[in-house]
Formats: sequence, structure tokens, C-alpha cells
Amino acid sequence: MKARAALMKTYNAPLEIGEIEIPEPTGEAVVVKIAGAGMCHSDLHLLRGELTGFPSPLPMVLGHENSGYVYAIGDKVPQALLGKPVLVFGAWYDEEDEYTIMGEQQFAYKAAWSGILKYYGGYAEYMYVPSYKFLVPAHGLDDLESAAILTDAGLTPYRAVKKLLGLVKPDDYVVVVGLGGLGLFGLQYVKLLLNAKTIAIDILDEKLSFAEKLVKLENTDVLLNASRVDVIGEINKITNGRGVRAVVDFVASRKSIETYMKVLSKMSYYVLVGLHSPLGPEMPIHPMVINEITFLGSLWGNISELYEVAEFARRKKIKYSELVEKVKLKEINRAFEKLEKGEALGRQVIVPK
Amino acid sequence: MKARAALMKTYNAPLEIGEIEIPEPTGEAVVVKIAGAGMCHSDLHLLRGELTGFPSPLPMVLGHENSGYVYAIGDKVPQALLGKPVLVFGAWYDEEDEYTIMGEQQFAYKAAWSGILKYYGGYAEYMYVPSYKFLVPAHGLDDLESAAILTDAGLTPYRAVKKLLGLVKPDDYVVVVGLGGLGLFGLQYVKLLLNAKTIAIDILDEKLSFAEKLVKLENTDVLLNASRVDVIGEINKITNGRGVRAVVDFVASRKSIETYMKVLSKMSYYVLVGLHSPLGPEMPIHPMVINEITFLGSLWGNISELYEVAEFARRKKIKYSELVEKVKLKEINRAFEKLEKGEALGRQVIVPK
Amino acid sequence: MKARAALMKTYNAPLEIGEIEIPEPTGEAVVVKIAGAGMCHSDLHLLRGELTGFPSPLPMVLGHENSGYVYAIGDKVPQALLGKPVLVFGAWYDEEDEYTIMGEQQFAYKAAWSGILKYYGGYAEYMYVPSYKFLVPAHGLDDLESAAILTDAGLTPYRAVKKLLGLVKPDDYVVVVGLGGLGLFGLQYVKLLLNAKTIAIDILDEKLSFAEKLVKLENTDVLLNASRVDVIGEINKITNGRGVRAVVDFVASRKSIETYMKVLSKMSYYVLVGLHSPLGPEMPIHPMVINEITFLGSLWGNISELYEVAEFARRKKIKYSELVEKVKLKEINRAFEKLEKGEALGRQVIVPK
Amino acid sequence: MKARAALMKTYNAPLEIGEIEIPEPTGEAVVVKIAGAGMCHSDLHLLRGELTGFPSPLPMVLGHENSGYVYAIGDKVPQALLGKPVLVFGAWYDEEDEYTIMGEQQFAYKAAWSGILKYYGGYAEYMYVPSYKFLVPAHGLDDLESAAILTDAGLTPYRAVKKLLGLVKPDDYVVVVGLGGLGLFGLQYVKLLLNAKTIAIDILDEKLSFAEKLVKLENTDVLLNASRVDVIGEINKITNGRGVRAVVDFVASRKSIETYMKVLSKMSYYVLVGLHSPLGPEMPIHPMVINEITFLGSLWGNISELYEVAEFARRKKIKYSELVEKVKLKEINRAFEKLEKGEALGRQVIVPK
Repeated sequence: MKARAALMKTYNAPLEIGEIEIPEPTGEAVVVKIAGAGMCHSDLHLLRGELTGFPSPLPMVLGHENSGYVYAIGDKVPQALLGKPVLVFGAWYDEEDEYTIMGEQQFAYKAAWSGILKYYGGYAEYMYVPSYKFLVPAHGLDDLESAAILTDAGLTPYRAVKKLLGLVKPDDYVVVVGLGGLGLFGLQYVKLLLNAKTIAIDILDEKLSFAEKLVKLENTDVLLNASRVDVIGEINKITNGRGVRAVVDFVASRKSIETYMKVLSKMSYYVLVGLHSPLGPEMPIHPMVINEITFLGSLWGNISELYEVAEFARRKKIKYSELVEKVKLKEINRAFEKLEKGEALGRQVIVPK
Repeated sequence: MKARAALMKTYNAPLEIGEIEIPEPTGEAVVVKIAGAGMCHSDLHLLRGELTGFPSPLPMVLGHENSGYVYAIGDKVPQALLGKPVLVFGAWYDEEDEYTIMGEQQFAYKAAWSGILKYYGGYAEYMYVPSYKFLVPAHGLDDLESAAILTDAGLTPYRAVKKLLGLVKPDDYVVVVGLGGLGLFGLQYVKLLLNAKTIAIDILDEKLSFAEKLVKLENTDVLLNASRVDVIGEINKITNGRGVRAVVDFVASRKSIETYMKVLSKMSYYVLVGLHSPLGPEMPIHPMVINEITFLGSLWGNISELYEVAEFARRKKIKYSELVEKVKLKEINRAFEKLEKGEALGRQVIVPK
Repeated sequence: MKARAALMKTYNAPLEIGEIEIPEPTGEAVVVKIAGAGMCHSDLHLLRGELTGFPSPLPMVLGHENSGYVYAIGDKVPQALLGKPVLVFGAWYDEEDEYTIMGEQQFAYKAAWSGILKYYGGYAEYMYVPSYKFLVPAHGLDDLESAAILTDAGLTPYRAVKKLLGLVKPDDYVVVVGLGGLGLFGLQYVKLLLNAKTIAIDILDEKLSFAEKLVKLENTDVLLNASRVDVIGEINKITNGRGVRAVVDFVASRKSIETYMKVLSKMSYYVLVGLHSPLGPEMPIHPMVINEITFLGSLWGNISELYEVAEFARRKKIKYSELVEKVKLKEINRAFEKLEKGEALGRQVIVPK
Repeated sequence: MKARAALMKTYNAPLEIGEIEIPEPTGEAVVVKIAGAGMCHSDLHLLRGELTGFPSPLPMVLGHENSGYVYAIGDKVPQALLGKPVLVFGAWYDEEDEYTIMGEQQFAYKAAWSGILKYYGGYAEYMYVPSYKFLVPAHGLDDLESAAILTDAGLTPYRAVKKLLGLVKPDDYVVVVGLGGLGLFGLQYVKLLLNAKTIAIDILDEKLSFAEKLVKLENTDVLLNASRVDVIGEINKITNGRGVRAVVDFVASRKSIETYMKVLSKMSYYVLVGLHSPLGPEMPIHPMVINEITFLGSLWGNISELYEVAEFARRKKIKYSELVEKVKLKEINRAFEKLEKGEALGRQVIVPK
């Protein structure tokens, strides 16, 4: 069957709306009718050909953050799935891979990441998925189009923040840097899972006030605009010079790391999320050793974690719909421009219907 | 009472053998007759005035790695301690400190590290210790003079390697970089605690062959001389391009980190020990995020961990005596020269008797 | 100095209001003017002489859950403590004990538990505390009298529920059995720390509706009256026959364990709190092995955990004042009767002023 | 194709040697030519119809502990597998199951355990395996027939002992109860992974001396014959009345639990393995709470853990060949008799060739 799609034909050029061929699903495969396809910063990097290690033959259909309805199924797929709302776990994996059998599917060696590596993604009316085991049920999620963002913007910060579980005390401060699509989820998870006192930071007032509306803050929580205040001085004041137990940095640039590693306390943690910069500042060996600082990279999430995220959304412990601005498929290039300029509040979702 | 001691009167000059006054112990305090005082690389940094954050009024008596006999006690010290062999835990702490009550005494804020901060250390006949709670029983340790090194060279790598407990599988490789005093313990702990396949690296053949004699290697273990082989290429060959699960780096210089961070596998760990270099290479953000690499600083150890190390030595699960070269107090400056030139195999211990 | 106190002169008899002698504090010791002293079920067991292993010479002053103001101090106590509001950590410990240095002070061998073992407790105007290190600052706790209950009713369930951190997923159910003083805190911690779907159980409607008012329930949470419904059938229905991930049982009787161990899922946890019954049902070996069920006893808490509880109360993440019914010292025997009959909602606190 | 097999036609009767039909493998399925099939105590329970929850239509071919060569493959199986030596992971699982995607395949709901549930096991010349993903490579295992026992006798204690990782200190004692097939592996893992002082217990001198030959004991390790000495008194003496940190009980009968739960220290662990008795003694609530004792059931292992066990065997960190007595298929009933009478030292393996 044919499907309308936004095609990346060359790097560094606008996408073209065209047609792709969707294979008939056989065996365990399914075709999903896309409800929503979230737009991720990584798409920008892919569009510029910047993500080394993720080469794909062109043309490519981007979009690795997808939700939809099961539209057609192979003969080995349970019949009951047909027509059901689903989230598409994007890091497609080999079953026999050593990481898969450990439950960390996103690290499987022979990966095929939809919209990134090998397979077409979700900036299209329909999407071919090689096995129904990559689908996570989306029943009970009121806004299926927006729910697409749970599969990356909602999943990646979940894994990142879970790494801090049990390491943070109620008197500790945790800093969240960057309140874009991922950071707004990150802030929600910090509040939900860590119960710490929280310092949320961005350089735009509108993002800070958006965060303030989204998340119920306590009076021990603080919002800081890093473009206007001396954040290091401010955090030192707030923590009486003791520093913070953890930073979750969704900017993860040379500059942000250079700044926030200066506010870490003894026995503290710095979690890096995102691929904006290939390199950071020089490793601060003396403070790292003397204060036992740990720097942790965090990538995406495994499929069990996506089930968990979906359940939190279902139980309304995290908000996702409020973060979403929906965009028509034909307006996708405008959405990319907005993303590039940092003008998107929350997350843009392509709705191809 | 008076005691002979090696005095640091100015930075960057030889120590002078002179006399210090040892206070009469009252309350919980004790005086320890030094059996051995291990010579640590940090002493070199202190001698050069390089360790910022650890200023002490001069003159100072260095030596934070001490063993001996309880020689005199205050009125609140259990009588039975008198004359007993002990190890001196060096990171003296406040009882009410938040880190102390968590069991991480070495991070207490109002620290007084003997031989480093405030109190005279063990390069002396006797040493004043403000509370008997800093003493760890040394019964059953055949060579008390050498056992001094358990309190730092034996303790620091223990904590560093324990951080990897449960994270390493029997098919994984762990790299130990630098086979000096700490690295030789590190190698022993990697074999004992992690049961991984091990790659031990140094730039001197004599250190490699010393390690080979000390530790019982398996046929899956490998020794590499980094001054002669292309270690990155070699490790890639050994691991079939998959990389290693963990590096424990006792050199922790810009160059060593730059090299060995290139051989890390997915979901891997890089532990930094030692204070040789204040700064390392630029943080490799892309690999850290894409492969979820964790960099961990590790400082010293808590007092429970010193009890554990002493017990391993007592049960002969780790060797310490074999690592030691004993040096008379009056020859301490020669020992420093040897340390500086990297000519010391294992660890030098000052024996003041 | 003299202080009015409720004296236990013989087992199984009403307490007598009389006078005790409070020693002058020297060294690290302090005298606390009691603000509140919580009444615990263990006091009943002690009154009946039932708690083997905790013998004390009579007369005894019970009361191990105390708050107050620092009234007098020894010469080694920081002057600034005088007059300050404090919580008294009740499990007094040796500094050199192996459990103390691990941060688990409540397991120290040479323990002296105020109001239980050796020292007089808080059912008195004043209380002698042998070291100021057993005091936890209570600044910012609006109702100091009620805050007494944080030291046991608030602390014990915190440690119990923390054992489940990281083991419970958002789609899992956790059962809280028994909504007395401890159970009401337990329910709060389950909601705060585990973010699970919760089933709260008691046999009295008034306790269930008290819980409902205290804790903000979600629509996935359930309250069950075990005296009226078939709880096993009900829980099976709620969980679609899968069972629950964890039970935190504050009744911990033969009958309660016999009942709720039947609703455990695969890879599940049963936490036992309280000393109501010395023995439970026969261990269900087959289910324990086939489903990998873990049964965990939980005792009290360490002093770091009391700092954490105090901070949660300060930040209003847990409620304590709402649970308290204040009782005058001279009415203490009436309070015991009420406790014995199970008529106390929440926790009774003796206010001696 | 036809294959000779030992058939269970009725409960409680000798097996009959007969023929079974092995289906042609299609898709992901394979046929394995059995090298060895270990005989497990559970087989006895299955033969008696005692294992509730594991009903299978008769006739059944038992044998869930298997090794062999890949003999025939379906069209979706990598060609390279043909002829390769393999271990068969026995707990066959659904891919989409929530436990499978967490990496705990042995808990999948729609399980099909070869030789136990639904599928014929390995007491036969050939065995049908529905997917090659249940095979673990056995290259480098010198004695493939004996290596069969790694899949259960070698795997189950590995998971059981791993639960204690990080919980045991070098000065702690760990008790291993029962030195049969599993216990001998258990003892090896305790020595290898926990580095504790070990007390190994059985009621037969020949099993104790077998263990002594198999495992290199330290002078802090102890062997006790529970039929001749007062084990509780003895352990109290050895531990100076402090008790042991952990018991790993491979007998797991009412009597064994009743005995060894009396030697547990504060903050201790009791791991139950095996299905000999459905019920144990009454739960000791008071000691469990006062000393924070944890009782843990442990079942089998996941497939990642089998990879780990195979690697330990390959690296000769654990012995397996030494534990095996090989038995011809036609002598299988004699082997069952020997097992029933407790006369088998180590593990019997059926070798059908």
C-alpha cells in the first residue's frame, strides 16, 4: 500500500511530502496507522547528518516517537490487536542479543531504530513495524496523538531520573537544567520519584513559567533563569554552600556542564541526557575524586520502562498532553524551523491524519 | 613526651629529622607507637603544596597510612586496648556529622586527616590520635609494619572496586591501569571481588612481572605494556571489538583517561582513583550518552571498609607484605626521591623504630 | 533535679505518677524538657512483661518516642543547642559498635533504648539523654508536641517502605495492612515513595475513613474493610488474579500473614512490622520458592532515617499532627486502656507540661 | 523422526523405554541430539505427581537439564548453529511476557518448561526445542555430557547466592545446608562470589568429604555433620554467639529451617532453594523483626544467568564434571532409586547415546 510521508531526500534541506510504499505485514509484522509522531531534537541532528554512527541510505522518513492504531497484521500476530491504540517502542531489537535478554533492548547490537536506522519512521500516514512485540498498549491514554511523545520525550528522562532512585535524600537539592520537551518530563519525574527539593533552570522566562504551570511546586523548590542570574552563586546561597546532590542536564553542552558541575556536593551525581554536543569541558578529576562525583550518560529506555511510563500517564501521575503542540504533516518544515530556533514550548507532534 | 619525627618545614624541600611534642592523652585520646607509616603519592603532592583544599600550618609531620601499638591511653579508653596492635584509620571525623552517621566518615565536613590536615602524621616514633574509635584492631596480621599500607593503599582501591560489584559479568573484561602501590591492590580486588577477565596495564616491564608474581592470573587474563603495544588496538582484538565493561584507572591522568575511555563497551564504567592530575580530557558526551558510560570518582574508604580490608588480609585473601619495601626514618628523603622517579616497586613504608 | 513521671512499678498494673531524680548533665549529656511522648503498642507489651530480651529493673519510666527542648547541657555540648527544639532518637548506641559505624545505630550491641532498656523514657517532665548526638533538630516542625511520634511511628514505617524502593512498578499494587499509628504513616510513605497503586486495609470503618481523609487517594487506590469483605477474593479481582507486588503488614499477626501471603504475585515482597505476635503461620515454602517471595522483618530506623523523616514532615510531604490525640500525663492510664481496646485513632501523645 | 525415550506413563511407576515422535523443526525450532540429561530431585516429585501447579498430560518424557548438539533446524534458524554443542535453557518463555522483557524469562506466565510442562524433556535420544533462542552455546566446555547439569543444578544455586552479593562482609559467616547436586554448586558460588567464611553442612560424611575434595577450603571454613554434632551450639561457638550473616538452605525442609534460623545474626538472610517440603516451621516474627531477618525464596535462573554460569565453567572458576555420575538411558530407573535413597553423590546424568 501507499502512504503519504515527509521524505528526507538530502541532508540539510527541507523535507518533501511524497509517497512511500508500505509492505504487506507477514509473520509477526504489523502496519500502524500513525496518530502522532513527536518531533525530537535528534531529528535535527539527523537532518544535518551530524549523528555519526547512525547512517541511513536516503531517502529516509524520520520520526521515532510514534503512536497510532494497529491497521494490518501478519499471520502470527494475535487477532485481538487489530484496531487497538498503541505506542511504538522505537529501539527495535534482536531477540537473541545479550542486551535484549538482560532486558536492555535499546542496546542490542543489530539494532534497527525506526526513523533513525534502516526502517522508515512515523512522519507518514502509516508505518511498517516488523514485530508486534515492539508495540505497547495505549488503552486509557485520553489523547493518543499526544501520547506519541511518551516513547522518547517521556521515556528518556524517566530512565535518566530512575538512576538517582535511592541516592537522594529529602533534604537534598536536585537541579534540572533545560525545560524543553525532555526537561519538562525530567522535572516531573524528579518531583514524582525523588521527592527532593528541586531547582529548575532555563534561559527563557516563558519556559520557566510553562514549567511552573505544569508542575506543582513546593515552597522549597526554585526556578532560575540562567540568562539573568548568577546561577552558581544563587545555588550556593540556596544550599548554604553545600551544593546539590544531583544535576539532570538536558542541555548537556560544554557550557552547561562547565557551569553546573561547580555546584555539586560530596557524593553527588551528574546525569547527561541528549546529543547536542559531542564534547564537554575537561573532566574535573580533583573534584570528582575528592568529592566522589559520578557522571552518568543516559540514552533512551528499555521497553519495560515504556510500559511504566505509559502507566504513569494513564494514572495521571505525569502530564503529557499539556506539553504538546500538534502540527499537520504538510507543515512539518515550519515545525523544524521552530524547533531549531528554540521557539517550541514543550513538544511538537506531527498529526498526519 | 618527645618523639623523633620527619618534619616538613617548608614546601619543596627535604624533610628534617627533629623532635615533636606528643600531648598526654586524656579522655578518648591515645598515643600510638608507630610500627610502619606508608609513603603515598599524595605525600608528594602535599610536599609540593599542590593539594588545594588541604592547607596545614607548617611545620607538618606527614604520614597518613599508619600502624602501631597503643602506647598510652586517656581515661575513657578501654584498658584492654593498651599494648594492642592497631591500624590507624586516617580520616578523622566528627561524630555528629551527617556523613559520619551515614557510615561515610571520610566525607565528614569538620575533618582532621592525620598527616594531612591539622594533626601530625606517622613519620615519627609516636603519634597522637584524638580518639580510640579511629583505631582498627590489627591482631592476626603477621607483619604489622607492612600492614600500615592497608589503611590507604589497601583501602582506597577496595572502595573503588566495590563500586563495580554486581555490574560485571563473568564474560566481561575489566582493565586495571597502573600497577603501583594502589594498582597492585586494585588488581587483587578485581580478581577477588569481580571474577572478571582482567587486563592489567603498566608502562614498566618490572611492574608487570611484579604483578604477575603477586596475583594468580588465569589464562583469560592479559598483561600489557602500554609503552610498547598499541593498547587500544590490543584491547579491541581481545574483546572482539566489544570493549571492556570497566576500567579502574590508578593513573587517572589526562592521557590515561583519553586512552582507555576509547575501549569502553555499552553500559560501562570508568573509575578514577588518585590525584595526579587536576584535569582530564574533554568529556566524551556522545559516547557517554549513546553507550551509557559512567565515570566515577573514588576517594578513600570508610572505617567499616578498613575493617573489611583488614579481615581480607588476615584471611590471606589479599597480600600486602609482599608489596612493601621498608625504609628507616632517617632515609625518608631518599624514599621520596625514589617515589618521585617512579622507581619504587609496590609501596615504601617508613619504619621509625 | 526532680521531675514528675509516670512510673511502672510492677508489670500489669496501672502506672503511678511520682517523682524521679534527673542527673545533672556532664560531658556530652543533656536534659530535655519533654514536649510530647508518643504512646506505642510496644509500651503495652513492656507493661505486660511480654517483650523477652528487653528486661529492665523496675521501677521504669516508659516512653521511647520523644520530643522537647534542650533544658540543660554538659560541658562538651555545643552551647547553641540550649533551648532548641529537638526530637530524641531512641535507640542509643555505642560509637565503636560495628553497626554504628555502618550507619545502622539501632542494631548496636551495647544498646540502651530510652524507656525500654536501662534509661528512663519520656513519660515525665524531663528526660536525661547521655549524649547530644542522639538529638535531631526539630526546627520548622509546627507542632513539636505531636512531632514526638516521628521518632517511632513516623520512623519505623519509613524504613519498612524504603526497603521496597526500586522494586515496585507503577502498574503494581501494594497492600498496607492495619491503619493504626504506624499504618497511617506506612500508607503515606507507600504513596510518597513507591508511587504504586495502593490497597489499604483495616477492620474498622472509622480507621478507613480516617485514612481516606489523611491521604489523597487516586482512583486506582482501594480501601477494604477486612471484617466485612472477602479480602483475598477482592484483591484477586482487583489484580486480575496476578496478585500484588508487596504487602506491608503493620498487624503482623499469624492471621494477617496467613491471609495476605495468599495474594502475592511472582517476585513479590512481604514486609513485617511490629511485635504483636511472636510466631506466624507455617512458612509457605512452595509458593516462596516457585514465586520467589521474600519476607522481610523491619525494626525501627537509623538516625539518618530520622533526619529524613523530620525533613519530610518539615516539607509537609507527610502529615503527623493530624494523627495525634494529646493526653495529659495524669491521664496516662486511661490512654493505655484506650490503646489496649483499639479505640485510639492515630496516635496518643502524652503532654506532661 | 522417531527417538528412543524413557516414558512416564503413570505416576509412581518405573519409566518405560519406548519411542516418541520428534516433529520436523520449522521456523525458529530446532532438534537437539541429547548429550546428557541431568536427573533432578524435582523429577522425583513429578514422578509422584506431587508438584501441584505443574500438571502434564501423560505420557511425559521427563528431563529438564539438557545438553547436546543441534541436529536439525527450521528455516529461520541461523545455519551456523547446525552441529554446534549447546546447553538447553529449560524455562521456555513467551517473548511478549512482562517478565521476559524484564529479563526474568523463567517467570513468564505462558511458560512451557521442557520435561515438566507441555513439552517432552531430555530423557531421550532427541529433543524438540521450539526456538533456537533457548539454546546457550557450549563451546569450550570439555565434557558436554556433564555440562547438562549447568542448566539447573549449576544455575539455580547461582541465582540463589547472587541474591547475597554486596550483603556479606569478609568477617561474616555463610552457612550452606545440604551438599547434594545443588549444594555442591552452592558451596562453590559462596566461595567464589561472597568471599565469606563458610560453614558447609550435611548429614553424611561421604558428602562432606566429597565437598572437601571439590572445593578449596580456607582455614576459616568449617564442615559440620549435622547428624553427629549439635550444629546450633557449634555455630554459636564459631561465631562467638553473633550468628551467621546468611544461610543458603538446599534442604529447605521444616526441620532444616527450624534449626538454622536459630543461628542468624542481626541483619541476616535465609535463602530457600528446592521444593522438598511444601511447608516450613512457623514464622519467627519476633526474631525476624528485632533482628531484621529476611527470608528469600529462589527458583531457577534467567537465561542471562545461564550464560554467566557457562562462562564460569568455561573459565574453570566452577567445577561440574567432577560432580557427575553418568548413567545409560536404559538404567534410568536404577538411577531414580539411588536418588530416592539419597545414595547419589553429586548429580546423575542420563547419557542416551
